[in-house]
Amino acid sequence: MIKAAIAGGTGYTAGELLRILVNHPEVEISSVISTSSVGEPIWSVHKDLLGESEICFTDSPGDADVVFLCLGHGLSREFMSKTALKEGCKVIDLGNDFRLDEMLDNKRFVYGLCELNKNEIEKADYIANPGCFATAIQLGILPLLSNKVELEDIHITALTGSTGAGKKPSETTHFSYRDSNISIYKLFSHQHLGEINKTFNGLGANPKIHFVPVRGDFARGIFASIYTKTEISQEEALNIYNDFYAESPFVFVSKSEISLKDVVNTNKCLLQVQKIGDILHITSVIDNLIKGASGQAVQNMNLMFGLKEEMGLRLKGSAF
Amino acid sequence: MIKAAIAGGTGYTAGELLRILVNHPEVEISSVISTSSVGEPIWSVHKDLLGESEICFTDSPGDADVVFLCLGHGLSREFMSKTALKEGCKVIDLGNDFRLDEMLDNKRFVYGLCELNKNEIEKADYIANPGCFATAIQLGILPLLSNKVELEDIHITALTGSTGAGKKPSETTHFSYRDSNISIYKLFSHQHLGEINKTFNGLGANPKIHFVPVRGDFARGIFASIYTKTEISQEEALNIYNDFYAESPFVFVSKSEISLKDVVNTNKCLLQVQKIGDILHITSVIDNLIKGASGQAVQNMNLMFGLKEEMGLRLKGSAF
Amino acid sequence: MIKAAIAGGTGYTAGELLRILVNHPEVEISSVISTSSVGEPIWSVHKDLLGESEICFTDSPGDADVVFLCLGHGLSREFMSKTALKEGCKVIDLGNDFRLDEMLDNKRFVYGLCELNKNEIEKADYIANPGCFATAIQLGILPLLSNKVELEDIHITALTGSTGAGKKPSETTHFSYRDSNISIYKLFSHQHLGEINKTFNGLGANPKIHFVPVRGDFARGIFASIYTKTEISQEEALNIYNDFYAESPFVFVSKSEISLKDVVNTNKCLLQVQKIGDILHITSVIDNLIKGASGQAVQNMNLMFGLKEEMGLRLKGSAF
Amino acid sequence: MIKAAIAGGTGYTAGELLRILVNHPEVEISSVISTSSVGEPIWSVHKDLLGESEICFTDSPGDADVVFLCLGHGLSREFMSKTALKEGCKVIDLGNDFRLDEMLDNKRFVYGLCELNKNEIEKADYIANPGCFATAIQLGILPLLSNKVELEDIHITALTGSTGAGKKPSETTHFSYRDSNISIYKLFSHQHLGEINKTFNGLGANPKIHFVPVRGDFARGIFASIYTKTEISQEEALNIYNDFYAESPFVFVSKSEISLKDVVNTNKCLLQVQKIGDILHITSVIDNLIKGASGQAVQNMNLMFGLKEEMGLRLKGSAF
Repeated sequence: MIKAAIAGGTGYTAGELLRILVNHPEVEISSVISTSSVGEPIWSVHKDLLGESEICFTDSPGDADVVFLCLGHGLSREFMSKTALKEGCKVIDLGNDFRLDEMLDNKRFVYGLCELNKNEIEKADYIANPGCFATAIQLGILPLLSNKVELEDIHITALTGSTGAGKKPSETTHFSYRDSNISIYKLFSHQHLGEINKTFNGLGANPKIHFVPVRGDFARGIFASIYTKTEISQEEALNIYNDFYAESPFVFVSKSEISLKDVVNTNKCLLQVQKIGDILHITSVIDNLIKGASGQAVQNMNLMFGLKEEMGLRLKGSAF
Repeated sequence: MIKAAIAGGTGYTAGELLRILVNHPEVEISSVISTSSVGEPIWSVHKDLLGESEICFTDSPGDADVVFLCLGHGLSREFMSKTALKEGCKVIDLGNDFRLDEMLDNKRFVYGLCELNKNEIEKADYIANPGCFATAIQLGILPLLSNKVELEDIHITALTGSTGAGKKPSETTHFSYRDSNISIYKLFSHQHLGEINKTFNGLGANPKIHFVPVRGDFARGIFASIYTKTEISQEEALNIYNDFYAESPFVFVSKSEISLKDVVNTNKCLLQVQKIGDILHITSVIDNLIKGASGQAVQNMNLMFGLKEEMGLRLKGSAF
Repeated sequence: MIKAAIAGGTGYTAGELLRILVNHPEVEISSVISTSSVGEPIWSVHKDLLGESEICFTDSPGDADVVFLCLGHGLSREFMSKTALKEGCKVIDLGNDFRLDEMLDNKRFVYGLCELNKNEIEKADYIANPGCFATAIQLGILPLLSNKVELEDIHITALTGSTGAGKKPSETTHFSYRDSNISIYKLFSHQHLGEINKTFNGLGANPKIHFVPVRGDFARGIFASIYTKTEISQEEALNIYNDFYAESPFVFVSKSEISLKDVVNTNKCLLQVQKIGDILHITSVIDNLIKGASGQAVQNMNLMFGLKEEMGLRLKGSAF
Repeated sequence: MIKAAIAGGTGYTAGELLRILVNHPEVEISSVISTSSVGEPIWSVHKDLLGESEICFTDSPGDADVVFLCLGHGLSREFMSKTALKEGCKVIDLGNDFRLDEMLDNKRFVYGLCELNKNEIEKADYIANPGCFATAIQLGILPLLSNKVELEDIHITALTGSTGAGKKPSETTHFSYRDSNISIYKLFSHQHLGEINKTFNGLGANPKIHFVPVRGDFARGIFASIYTKTEISQEEALNIYNDFYAESPFVFVSKSEISLKDVVNTNKCLLQVQKIGDILHITSVIDNLIKGASGQAVQNMNLMFGLKEEMGLRLKGSAF
C-alpha cells in the first residue's frame, strides 16, 4: 500500500482527494495535515466523510510515500523548505508554485498534464499539477498543436464553478450574489494563461490566446468554449482528436452535444469538435475539482507509482 | 415630500429600501448613512442602482422626517442614544431591538405588523418592524386567533432565502455550501418565536408552536408550511381568512396551489388554506426582504404619514 | 387611458406585459386573448397576479388602441390576416415575424430598438420588437458602428436564461437537466444574427460576427461578452458610449464590474467597456423578458403614444 | 459474473443503475431494454456514459441472472406477465407495483429495505425496492419502533429533488418554474404513506403520520425533518439509533448538523437525532436516486447474490 499524506487537509481539493483516496485500492491515507485541526477526525471538517474514515488531522507527513500539497498558492515552496519528508517521498503540488518555475533547488517539478507528459510523469518524483482552467483549455487545443496545425488567434470563454474560488467565503462566492448570476473576472489576464502558453511554446507554437474567464452560478465544473480559424476540415480535426486521445482513459470526443453535467464528479474530459465555415469550435468540459485538481493528482500518482492510470478514478458521475 | 434617511445604508435591507424609495412618489431620500463609505455614491455599493440615483453616503440623518434603521440586531438602541434626530422625526427599526422590549425611555415602539396593528401604526412615531419569519407565520395564523379559534399545537416548517442571513459572507451562505443544499438551524428555538408568541398572547391565545427553520437554496423568500388540529371546516376557515384580509392590499387567499415565486420581489403575502381530515394546513409565502423587511417598513411609513397604504409598493413581481 | 390588448396571453412575455401594464398609469388592459382559456381569470394561469387584476381571458382584441402580439414565432402574420382590429389600432409584435421582412401588405413594421430608432418609432403604427439576444448585443456594439468605428471580427459569447426558451417544457428546460448545467446551442447560427446584421448593414457596417449562444442555468437574463480589435482608446470608447446613451433612460455605462443580477427584473441595460491591449471588450446585461421583450415593447408603446419613454418602466430590480 | 438486465433503460433510475453497475466488480450488464431505442448505444441517451460502455439498447432481458425493473409505476406487473425470464432469474422492481400487494401469482416480493429485512432479502428472488421518501422516512423512525418506543403523532416535512419526478418534462419540473421555487404537493396524501404504514404496522405500531411533501429546487436528494413527542432522553435515543445501525455500512448517526449535500451521489443515509423539550427530532438525508432507488436496488442485489453488501456502492460523494 502506498502511504499518502495530504498537506492543507481542510480545503476543498484536500476533501476531494480524501473522497477519492478512501476508496483507492492501493492507497492508505497515512496523514492529513492541518495545523488548525490537529487531533480532530477528518469528518469534523469534511462532514460527508462520516462513516468513511476515522483518521484524524495531524501536523506532519510522517513516513508518507507521497505527499499531496493542497496549500494556498505560494505556500508550497514554504512547506517544502520547512518540512522533513521521508527519503524518496514523492510530491504532487496542487497549487501553482511550480507550474512556471519548475525548479526547487535541484528538484524539477514535471508539469502533470497526463495526456501530454505521461512518459515524464511516470519517471518523476515531483509533479506540478495543472490548474483547472488550464486543464480544460489545453485538453481542448493540444491535439491541434501537437499535430502542428498552425493557429493564430484562439478565442476562449470559460465558466468556472464556485468551488474553484476555494473555501474561504468572499463577496463573489456569497450565495446571495452568486446564485443565478454571471460575471467576468481577470479579463484576458487569468494566471492560468502562463502555464497554457508555456505548454504551447514547448510544442513550438505561439498562438495568441484571448481568454474570458467567467464566474458561473454552479458549484462544480469548467465549461470551455474554444474557437479558432483553421483550414483543416471537420473530418481531419476529428481524426486528430480521436488519435491523440486514443489511449487516454479519461478524454473522449463526442459526436453530439455535450453539457457540463456530463462530467461532473468524474475524472473525465469530454470534447466536442465542430467545423463551421472556416472556424473550428471545441467545447471542453471537466470537473474543476477532479480532472482539474484532485482527480488529476491521483492520476499522476498512479503513473508515478506504476499503477494503472485509472485506478481509483472510475467515479460515478452525478449526471444531475 | 417626506425626507427619508436610512441608517446602515450598505446592507441588504437598506438596498431594498433604496430600490423601493427611489420610485416612491412622496419620498425624497435625504440621506443614506454609512460610516464606511461616506462620500461615495450609493451605486458604488448597490451596483444595480447605477442610473437610479446619484445620492452619496453620508454620516448623519440630517433633517429627515423619518429614519429607517437597517443596523445589525442590537445596534438600533445604540444608534438612538448617540444620534440627534430632528424633532418629530419618526423612526422605523428593521432590527429586533424593540420588538420584545418596546420601550426606549418614554418612547414606545409599535409592532409594525400592518395587517394587525393598522390603527396604532397610523398614530405611531416609532415602529418595530417585524421579522421575516415572524411576518410569514403570523399572517398565516392571525385570522384564526383573532377569531378566537382555539389552537393547541401549531406545527411550522419554514424555509428562508440566503439574503435573510445578511450580506456578511459566512460558511452557510457560501455558494459552494448552499447551492442545492438544505439544512435546519435553530431548531425549535428561532428568535422570532419571541415576537410571534407576544402577538398571540396579546390576542389571548397561547398555542404551543413547534417551528423548524430551514435554510433554503434560494436567495429570496420565506415559504412557510403551517398546520394545526381544529374543528372548523374548510369553508369556515376560508371565510375567516377572507374576512380578515378583506381590506388588505397585500394579503390574498388563493384557492389553488401557490409557490414561493408567486410573491418574490413583491410586498404581497399569498396564503393557501386547506382542511384535510381534522388538520387545517396553511401555506404562507412572502419575499423576506420586502414584505418581510423593507417593503413592510415602507408600508408602515405610508400609514404613519397618512399616505395610501400601497403607495410605492405596487412592485412588479419577478415571477421566474 | 390607452386600451391595450395582448394576444397569446398565457405565455411568458404576455405574463410580463401584464405584470408591467397593471401598474402603468396610462394603460387599461382591455383584453387578454387566449383561445385555450377564455373566461378564466388571468391569475388562473399567471398565479402571481392574484390580487392584481380580475380581468379574464377573451378571444378578441375588441376595441383596443394597441395590440401586443405574444404569439409563437411565425404566428403573428397569421393573426394579422385573420383578426379585425379597430381602425388606427397600433401593433407591437414581440415575435420575429416582421424583424427581417418588415412589410405586411402596405404596412411597414419599424424595428423597435428604441435607442436606435426613437424618431421612427414615435411615428410608427407597427413595431417589430427586437429579440432578446439581439437587444443585448446591439446595445453593446451600436455606439461604435454609429460612430463609424471600423470593426472586422466581433466575438460574442452570450448566456440566456431558461425563460428565453418559452413556457412549453422540453428536454433542455427540464430542471434536472438545466440546473447547474451549461451548454451551447445554435453555434454561430442563432436566428438573431439576422436582425443584428440588418441593423449593422443599415449603418453601413458589415463586421463578421462570431456568436456563441449558451444556455445558462438561471431563469432570467442575457449576459453578453463582446470583443473586437480596434485602434480607439479606452477613453475614446467611453466617450462614444456615454454620448450615445446620454439621453437614454435605460442604458448606463458602468465604470466598475457589472453582473447579470444588476439588471434582472428591470428594463435597464448595463454596459462595461474595457480596452485591454488592442482589444475592446464590452459586457452587456439585460433582463431577457423585460428589456429583451415585454419592457422594450412597453417602451415602444410609450414612444408611439407620445408618453414619457420610461412611464411604467421604473421597475424595482430584484438584485438578488 | 452476474448478468444484469435493466428494463426501462432510458429513464433516470436506469441511468443511475448503469452508472453504478459499469464499475461493479461482479456484474456484467447483459442487456438494457428500451423499446424506443433498440440498437443505439446507451450513451446516446445517457450522454455522460460516453467512454464507459459500448453496450446498446435491446428489447429483451436475454439470459440475465437478475432483472431490474425501471418502468413507470404500474408497468412492472405488465412486464412480468409478458416477458420470458430465464429460470431462476431474480427480479428487483424499482416501481411501486409490489410494495403494497406483494404477490404476483405465487411469487412474493420482499420489501427491499435492507436495514430492516436483510435476512429475508438474502433469501429472496423478488424484491420490491422501497420508494425514495419512504426510505428516508423509515430509516429515520425505524429504530424507535423496532425498540417498541411508543409514538402517537409523527410530523414529517420532506423535500425532494426534481429527479424524483422523472425524466418526462412537466410544468413543475420546468426550470423556469422550479428554480429558486418551493411548493407543496400531495399534502398529507403522498402514496409512499402506504408502504411506510405497512412497515410500521408490521412492527406492531400504528402512529399517526402527518407528511408534508415539498418540491425542492435542487436536482438530487431527499431532506426529511421528522419529529414526535416521546419520553425517552437524547442519550437513550442515540443509543437506540447507534445500536440499530451498528452493522449497517450505509447509515450513520451524526453528532453535529447535517445537510443534504453530505449524502448526494452516495448510497448513504445520514441521521441527526436531537431531543428538545419533550420532542425528539430526527433529520434524515439520502440521495433519492441512489439510496432512494438504484443504489438500494444494487444493495439488494448484493444481498440476494451473497456478495458483500456494499460492493460497488462505495461511491464518491459529490459534496458540492
